[in-house]
Amino acid sequence: MQFGLRLVTQAVLCKTQRVLLSARSLGTSNPRFPKHQPENWFSKRGKRLTSAGNTMTEVDPKVEAILQPLRDAVKQQGDIVRKLKEEKAPEIDIKRAVADLKTKKKALEDKELELEPKDAQFDRVKMEDLLKQRFFYDQAFAIYGGVNGLYDFGPMGCAMKANLLNAWRKHFILEEQMLEVDCSMLTPEPVLIASGHVERFSDYMVKDMKNGQCFRADHLIEAHLEKLLTDKKLADDVKEKAAKILSVIDGLTKEEMGSIMKTYNMKSPVSGNDLSEPVAFNLMFSTSIGPTGTVKGYLRPETAQGIFVNFKRLLEFNQGKLPFAAAQIGNSFRNEISPRSGLIRVREFTMAEIEHFLDPEDKSHPRFKDVADLRIPLHSACNQLDGKPVQVMTLGEAVEQKIINNQTLGYFMGRIYLFMTKCGVDPTRFRFRQHMSNEMAHYACDCWDAECKTSYGWIECVGCADRSCYDLKQHQKATGVTLSASKQLPEPKTVEFVEPQMQKGVIGKAFKKDGKAVIDFIAAMDKEEVEAMDRALNDRKEFAVNVNGQEFKITPEMVSIKRYEKTVHVEDITPGVIEPSFGIGRIMYAIFEHSYRQREGDEQRRYFSLPPVIAPYKCSVLPLSGKAELDTIVSQLSKALTNLDISHKVDDSGGSIGRRYARTDAIAIPFGITVDFDSLKEPHTATLRERDTMKQIRASVDELPQIVSDLANGRRSWEDVLSNYPLFEQQESSK
Amino acid sequence: MQFGLRLVTQAVLCKTQRVLLSARSLGTSNPRFPKHQPENWFSKRGKRLTSAGNTMTEVDPKVEAILQPLRDAVKQQGDIVRKLKEEKAPEIDIKRAVADLKTKKKALEDKELELEPKDAQFDRVKMEDLLKQRFFYDQAFAIYGGVNGLYDFGPMGCAMKANLLNAWRKHFILEEQMLEVDCSMLTPEPVLIASGHVERFSDYMVKDMKNGQCFRADHLIEAHLEKLLTDKKLADDVKEKAAKILSVIDGLTKEEMGSIMKTYNMKSPVSGNDLSEPVAFNLMFSTSIGPTGTVKGYLRPETAQGIFVNFKRLLEFNQGKLPFAAAQIGNSFRNEISPRSGLIRVREFTMAEIEHFLDPEDKSHPRFKDVADLRIPLHSACNQLDGKPVQVMTLGEAVEQKIINNQTLGYFMGRIYLFMTKCGVDPTRFRFRQHMSNEMAHYACDCWDAECKTSYGWIECVGCADRSCYDLKQHQKATGVTLSASKQLPEPKTVEFVEPQMQKGVIGKAFKKDGKAVIDFIAAMDKEEVEAMDRALNDRKEFAVNVNGQEFKITPEMVSIKRYEKTVHVEDITPGVIEPSFGIGRIMYAIFEHSYRQREGDEQRRYFSLPPVIAPYKCSVLPLSGKAELDTIVSQLSKALTNLDISHKVDDSGGSIGRRYARTDAIAIPFGITVDFDSLKEPHTATLRERDTMKQIRASVDELPQIVSDLANGRRSWEDVLSNYPLFEQQESSK
Repeated sequence: MQFGLRLVTQAVLCKTQRVLLSARSLGTSNPRFPKHQPENWFSKRGKRLTSAGNTMTEVDPKVEAILQPLRDAVKQQGDIVRKLKEEKAPEIDIKRAVADLKTKKKALEDKELELEPKDAQFDRVKMEDLLKQRFFYDQAFAIYGGVNGLYDFGPMGCAMKANLLNAWRKHFILEEQMLEVDCSMLTPEPVLIASGHVERFSDYMVKDMKNGQCFRADHLIEAHLEKLLTDKKLADDVKEKAAKILSVIDGLTKEEMGSIMKTYNMKSPVSGNDLSEPVAFNLMFSTSIGPTGTVKGYLRPETAQGIFVNFKRLLEFNQGKLPFAAAQIGNSFRNEISPRSGLIRVREFTMAEIEHFLDPEDKSHPRFKDVADLRIPLHSACNQLDGKPVQVMTLGEAVEQKIINNQTLGYFMGRIYLFMTKCGVDPTRFRFRQHMSNEMAHYACDCWDAECKTSYGWIECVGCADRSCYDLKQHQKATGVTLSASKQLPEPKTVEFVEPQMQKGVIGKAFKKDGKAVIDFIAAMDKEEVEAMDRALNDRKEFAVNVNGQEFKITPEMVSIKRYEKTVHVEDITPGVIEPSFGIGRIMYAIFEHSYRQREGDEQRRYFSLPPVIAPYKCSVLPLSGKAELDTIVSQLSKALTNLDISHKVDDSGGSIGRRYARTDAIAIPFGITVDFDSLKEPHTATLRERDTMKQIRASVDELPQIVSDLANGRRSWEDVLSNYPLFEQQESSK
Repeated sequence: MQFGLRLVTQAVLCKTQRVLLSARSLGTSNPRFPKHQPENWFSKRGKRLTSAGNTMTEVDPKVEAILQPLRDAVKQQGDIVRKLKEEKAPEIDIKRAVADLKTKKKALEDKELELEPKDAQFDRVKMEDLLKQRFFYDQAFAIYGGVNGLYDFGPMGCAMKANLLNAWRKHFILEEQMLEVDCSMLTPEPVLIASGHVERFSDYMVKDMKNGQCFRADHLIEAHLEKLLTDKKLADDVKEKAAKILSVIDGLTKEEMGSIMKTYNMKSPVSGNDLSEPVAFNLMFSTSIGPTGTVKGYLRPETAQGIFVNFKRLLEFNQGKLPFAAAQIGNSFRNEISPRSGLIRVREFTMAEIEHFLDPEDKSHPRFKDVADLRIPLHSACNQLDGKPVQVMTLGEAVEQKIINNQTLGYFMGRIYLFMTKCGVDPTRFRFRQHMSNEMAHYACDCWDAECKTSYGWIECVGCADRSCYDLKQHQKATGVTLSASKQLPEPKTVEFVEPQMQKGVIGKAFKKDGKAVIDFIAAMDKEEVEAMDRALNDRKEFAVNVNGQEFKITPEMVSIKRYEKTVHVEDITPGVIEPSFGIGRIMYAIFEHSYRQREGDEQRRYFSLPPVIAPYKCSVLPLSGKAELDTIVSQLSKALTNLDISHKVDDSGGSIGRRYARTDAIAIPFGITVDFDSLKEPHTATLRERDTMKQIRASVDELPQIVSDLANGRRSWEDVLSNYPLFEQQESSK
């Protein structure tokens, strides 16, 4: 793949200013950086781009009848954009057509959202209360007034997170034999200059001229215009103009935003004071490494760079062979201007990232057949252009029809789907959405976001991108260290080599102390660069190189070009990269919403139906009373569960058993053993209750820990247990 | 316990400027901060304080005869210090006597080290080469030239670290039902002002006046004087003076260091340029949270504060009951002036910390009996004062004899010992050393460091401290939020209450907009403070309070004091804290050294004898050749091992089987299954080899995965396997 798209910010970031680093055209590695990038891989989609509804459910023909004209309008405009691209129309014309397309897509998406059946039971505030109350997570430093965008996980959230990460490690690293690394979060500046973050990882902000309060420029404009649009007496043309701005707000340049703010005379929504012009605000936390104050560093904005800078070691560890995958779990940081949306947009977050390095000319995957038959909801760029809804199809079909670019990408999408649904994501509220670039005119790229539908709309939880060879090339360029792998050729071939022959003495004499740097620079040139130098030396008798920010004039006396042919059996290639990137906090949030339940007829009994694999505790042990005889059995059970590595909670706090079940339900404990007075009879028995069905069986105390272990580890189903042990019937009451 | 010592920096930090926050005297919570604190819980001990040698081995009477006079000298001086303390002698006299004591202790420790039998085989450089070569860990950002004090863990180090942390989580959090939290690393300044870090978490540094290079002042002085002492022609009085400075270098003030540098005319050891005066350099990485630049934050220097600020939520989660323990695993950061000693002194590191909250008047532990009979090498403060060697005794005896302050502290020391030895720390190179304060004159405290002996000397890997109620009180004071627990009294008691009665109108009128803050401040006063105010209002008719940096004069018109008695059944107490704090990187390093081996007679075959519980992979699968028939069996084995959660590595890279064994040994894989040509016969069998003994058995391919699983999880011993399966005899060669 020759085009490369680098979404530096990944799944967890999902942001306006995604750093799109793309190769401008075939055959050149010259990156092209759009001035301002499309936002809203989350926040806007959260509010509007909730297309497609419940992706796995039936389509309602009445709804479709309403949507059809809107779909047609999108399709019509999409075709215009396609045509303009084909005709290589002037950029300005394409840009206008794309803006129109976005307006039409937004109308379709708004309508889709409006027509979706609402979950009447779901109340986000109540769910979040339960999460706080049971200390799954809460605002960090609350006793000090709190800090926006920072959260602490309590015992329940922390255990769930540890379980989720263990499941991730098992599902990806162990099962796929990936190479895990654990790299430094503190990152020196040159690394992030090479990756593009220092220059481009930023949002535009405006400042209150009097009190210094800061706002994200696009959020401010958006809020202002949305408020304006609520005015029913607004003239149609004003309305239309405002709506148009809203639909392209992700793509506005700094200058456009400044001019819009002037036109609408926007002031601080808090103080009413004047605002500054929009300025770019880099979202990395900066710090200084060491005591001198001269070594600038940042907290890493993603974990991926740690893998790239270790590529050589990892390749060597893998005995020089491609393909291989490296993975990293760890925290990243992002200094949001104004964090909101709870756990979804935070300043410090855990990611799990995979970089699968492969031969860019062979993206097949030997295990693709294991996932080829999975039926998965896909929202392709093409269908989005055509105004079509999400399409459920097998990964095999999608790769065959080139909807998904290649097998490896498809394989990871399948593995992601299996992981997410195993951990409690509702498959009917899951989809893969293919990236549509706002700069559709300019490049192709394949990148799919695994999105979960929540009360915030569709949120991106995992990104799965084919990033081509971009990252390794950038670091190679910045360091002069070759980051390539040897590829055995199917048959030997004759290759023309072009090598600069340097007169080191002449260079040294001319450039003195800089001589060595110039020599190293020339030695590291790739074939294209040497050819360019050769042409320049022939035509103009000089060639300028820029080394460490200084320019040096190379003359024919310093360098001559040697050309020769050689038969080679291997060739050096820069590996391509497929990158699945997981936002752990976002996945947790989606799972919370998808597993939040309320007992029928009892408003007070809210709980989380988490699957055992990620439930904080697997089991509770509840003595019916504080009697000492029961204690012995409780201790015996607790010890046996510990020996089986089954995390559990003994709740001997008193209170009715119903009340205690409600409490253990609220922290998502799937199984509960109750030691009652019948337990005292020999042979000792106790009851076992399952959270979701609330059904109970009675079994021997010796057997129960193993039964729970089998249930918790998925070796046995609850149905199977139910049919093998006597049912224990007793009314459950929360009073 | 009324005295409190807060070692903010903990195990992993072990530093000069440990922030000693201590209560000055009984009954007051007024902290006393020594200007400069003793260093060298690690770095100096690393080089010199290697007392006691192999703690579990026999004492050599010849060695003891040489040491005896030195021991006597320490004891004599120790007694002098004790006597001066008893007599409450002037501080200056005690300080001098302590300095003399340290000189004598150093002489003893130097001699002990000199007389220790050396491990002739051990070569740190070769071990570190192996660690790099197999990518356990290596310098971070090496292709960019690297950054001192930052390391990346490769696949092997990362898997080992994950296994170590899982073992930790199981041993501590699961088995003890602790409440785990996962808190923000970014920390706003007020939190770290309250904890004392902003003011005191610093080292002294000097700067090259011309090129700005920085040095740690104490390191510089030390290096200068040590170089001086190598001069054989040096006059005795000069020698003695230099040695004396070296022995007290940990306790030097900024002024003393400045004056020493002048006396010896010290220059930059690199450039020879003049140096600045010593200045305090705060070791926290600072950054700015949010876009305004006004919210200052730091990267946390320890994980403990995250637990303290969540105390209320955790207590509530535990249904208001004491005792309970909270734990956190995560990264902390420390901006070392000049990191050295590899993995031991780094700028970013993983810690695992426990805060066990308890009733300060009841530090018994119900499970103490489980560890009471463990025989553990203890180096008590008293024995250190007496010049005695490490003493092996049971924890039961140590607590009974009050050598260890209380059962809970002793319980954790036992659990730490079990954890460390389980994970591969050599028990003969392990000891607990009790903290001796350099300010012995001023306070008592109980704190023990779990130390491992390495080629750097004894290094502190775990701290286990009784920190009294200091931390919660500090945060309570800073926030006004009550951080206490209710304690049921054994019988009701009558308590005198003293309450300020405020005339809020008068206060509001006097202080206007600050009135509310003053009212809140007075309402949050504790009993002692109210009493002090009462006295002042009676005696001087006014009392000054300092609120938010401003002084306000309180008059009798504003506040009167109400006194009354009440019978109470519960009382509010600020819980005490026992804190075990683990430096994960240091523990890993100690394990590397303790498990590093070389095959007899084969210099090239070096390996790590890691216990299966933390070995990166549990098993290798080695097909003898690339034949397709063998592949089927290899796949079958790999699948079965994955199903049993056994991490493993298939090495089908070719090369002799001996060479491949050597390679798997080097990455510490404890078990290896070899599929050979006999494996093709029905029923299929393969060989199983154990790393340390190099013995092999032959068993059926169906059985082998379960055998490995049992071995890896400690359910079965290798001896047991050896005696149940036919031995497979074959020469192992690395050629």
